[in-house]
Amino acid sequence: MIIDHVDPSGARAGRINTDHGVIPTPMFMPVGTQGAVKACDFNTLLSLDAPIYLANTYHLYLRPGAEVLTSVGGLHRLCGWRRPILTDSGGFQVYSLRDLRTMQEEGVTFKSHLDGSKHLFTPENVVDTQRAIGSDLFMVLDECTPYPVSHEEAEQSAALTARWAVRSKQHHSETPFLYGHRQLQFAIGQGSVYSDIRRSCMQQLVDLDFDGYAIGGLSVGEPHDVMYGVTALSTSLMPPEKPRYLMGVGTPENILHAIGLGVDLFDCVMPTRNARNGTIFTTKGRFNARNAKWKLSDEPIDEEVGCHTSSNTSLAYLRHLFMAGEILGLMLATAQNIALYLWLVRTAREKILDGTFRLWAAATIDQLNAQR
Amino acid sequence: MIIDHVDPSGARAGRINTDHGVIPTPMFMPVGTQGAVKACDFNTLLSLDAPIYLANTYHLYLRPGAEVLTSVGGLHRLCGWRRPILTDSGGFQVYSLRDLRTMQEEGVTFKSHLDGSKHLFTPENVVDTQRAIGSDLFMVLDECTPYPVSHEEAEQSAALTARWAVRSKQHHSETPFLYGHRQLQFAIGQGSVYSDIRRSCMQQLVDLDFDGYAIGGLSVGEPHDVMYGVTALSTSLMPPEKPRYLMGVGTPENILHAIGLGVDLFDCVMPTRNARNGTIFTTKGRFNARNAKWKLSDEPIDEEVGCHTSSNTSLAYLRHLFMAGEILGLMLATAQNIALYLWLVRTAREKILDGTFRLWAAATIDQLNAQR
Repeated sequence: MIIDHVDPSGARAGRINTDHGVIPTPMFMPVGTQGAVKACDFNTLLSLDAPIYLANTYHLYLRPGAEVLTSVGGLHRLCGWRRPILTDSGGFQVYSLRDLRTMQEEGVTFKSHLDGSKHLFTPENVVDTQRAIGSDLFMVLDECTPYPVSHEEAEQSAALTARWAVRSKQHHSETPFLYGHRQLQFAIGQGSVYSDIRRSCMQQLVDLDFDGYAIGGLSVGEPHDVMYGVTALSTSLMPPEKPRYLMGVGTPENILHAIGLGVDLFDCVMPTRNARNGTIFTTKGRFNARNAKWKLSDEPIDEEVGCHTSSNTSLAYLRHLFMAGEILGLMLATAQNIALYLWLVRTAREKILDGTFRLWAAATIDQLNAQR
Repeated sequence: MIIDHVDPSGARAGRINTDHGVIPTPMFMPVGTQGAVKACDFNTLLSLDAPIYLANTYHLYLRPGAEVLTSVGGLHRLCGWRRPILTDSGGFQVYSLRDLRTMQEEGVTFKSHLDGSKHLFTPENVVDTQRAIGSDLFMVLDECTPYPVSHEEAEQSAALTARWAVRSKQHHSETPFLYGHRQLQFAIGQGSVYSDIRRSCMQQLVDLDFDGYAIGGLSVGEPHDVMYGVTALSTSLMPPEKPRYLMGVGTPENILHAIGLGVDLFDCVMPTRNARNGTIFTTKGRFNARNAKWKLSDEPIDEEVGCHTSSNTSLAYLRHLFMAGEILGLMLATAQNIALYLWLVRTAREKILDGTFRLWAAATIDQLNAQR
């Protein structure tokens, strides 16, 4: 990737090149697990100028399945999105199926959450599925540990993740791209909250020379300062010329902190899931869409983020839609929350470039955390 | 209204002027009962070039209520739609609450479907609520009879509807518009399937000189030929220079038939409700989005209707979204079905203007009814 500027804090402004376009960083990736961002169409995603979205290998493997994906020419063709897509490997989803999975050296056997059918994910076949998907950035299969976990378990697990990374890299190098465009392979560092394991795991991954590096196994219940500590340690070990991705994080505050620790990429279900529950993130703070105080308010949701929905939807209308159970309420709330997250990372990039990131971030965290 | 052309069949191409813009006719109005078309944002409605949508007085009276509407300056301001809006009076919705209502000369007392609270709709206060809404076209309060109903009951009911129409007109003439723009008042003919009652009721309404006339009490279970008979009789009694609206109808086939009988305006929940059930209307026929035959199909939903969704969404993707339970499936299906209904009335208008309506309609009915 191209690094445009590094702030004294360590915050980076850069650009990741893919065959489907450039991703300016820092960047937040809206989550479209099943190849669709919930309650958001791709025209809206384009109007918000999202440069990339994230889909999930586990879900797409089960449904629509590799046969459909290869038949229509990959996920870009299937969903009609011509910009970059990142796919997670499914490691985290399989980790979430605790009682339905068995880890072995070969891979992980699990039962589908849809119909209980049995499946095996290996480092190799997860690369194959992501070939069928055709994502621009894709993740290796990893094992994610719960929190808390013993040092011994964390060590064994991180060692397995590192051995799987070797096989993933090998398989990636031996198999062709299916649709003509390049796919960049990212490794995932594990090791729970243990610095020695995190360090050793990440160093092994860096030695394998991946296209990018991710920090996995966080945002699973550990305190925020531990998350920031592991993030800082991990980014310090990553080569500066490669993208850095903190998986599954987080609140706007988490994201600003982690940008300050040198992270480039983020994804989280928080903006979209919370939108559907009626929790709205704005530049003036967060609020509940159903709150009676909006009943008569002609005020727009958010005038600062520069999105059509945010500037043209009144709080009274948003409240009405949620009270009336209209799908349009979910759609407008989702657009606003994605707009806010994109505004956050875009403004962070500007502030890094003009050297005012740290001051701006401190003021912005208070502003965004306010209860509106 | 301006009549541009009348086909020998009786089909009319015209234009209705409102202070929020011109409505070319024949026209279909997508239903947005609670001030929102289900699973469809207003940008999509604009991109489909819908000139008008329909909302409902009963629902808006209950939620968000007249206080919110007057406080923000009416429904246009609330929902952000700057084109015309028609509101139904709520007569049909109250009719649907059979066990929760009592008819009197004064009006109709009913219990809210939301919380059981008791309310009275009178011809006058329904005008007042529609003043608060600020719809461009609005309907008088009527009584709708079930099907079948005795001649005596139908006669008494139509007589009440006609007496209410007098009071509605009177109240309309005595109360000001609230937001500076004009509101056109439409009367509703009743009389079930009885020609003598239909004739007498409509003649009384025509004598009162409303801005437009509607045919109510149809599409409640009567055979299609009866519906067409009542429609033909009703339009024959209406003054040619006023808009004619067949309420709650219907399938694409019903609409083409009724256009041939001289109807200008239509509304129906069919395209939007069926979309959410996965029934898709296209220029090549209708189909179920979940059908396994679309599993691998890269074919677009519909290339003829000229809508972004229709041309750019593959059948395989639409099926995937429905199988995966994604809200985006409902959104895309809704956009397609509205696009099809608008394509239908727009093309009908072209064919009326160039004198080929009857031939085109006959061929099109077969095409649309095909199982794809």
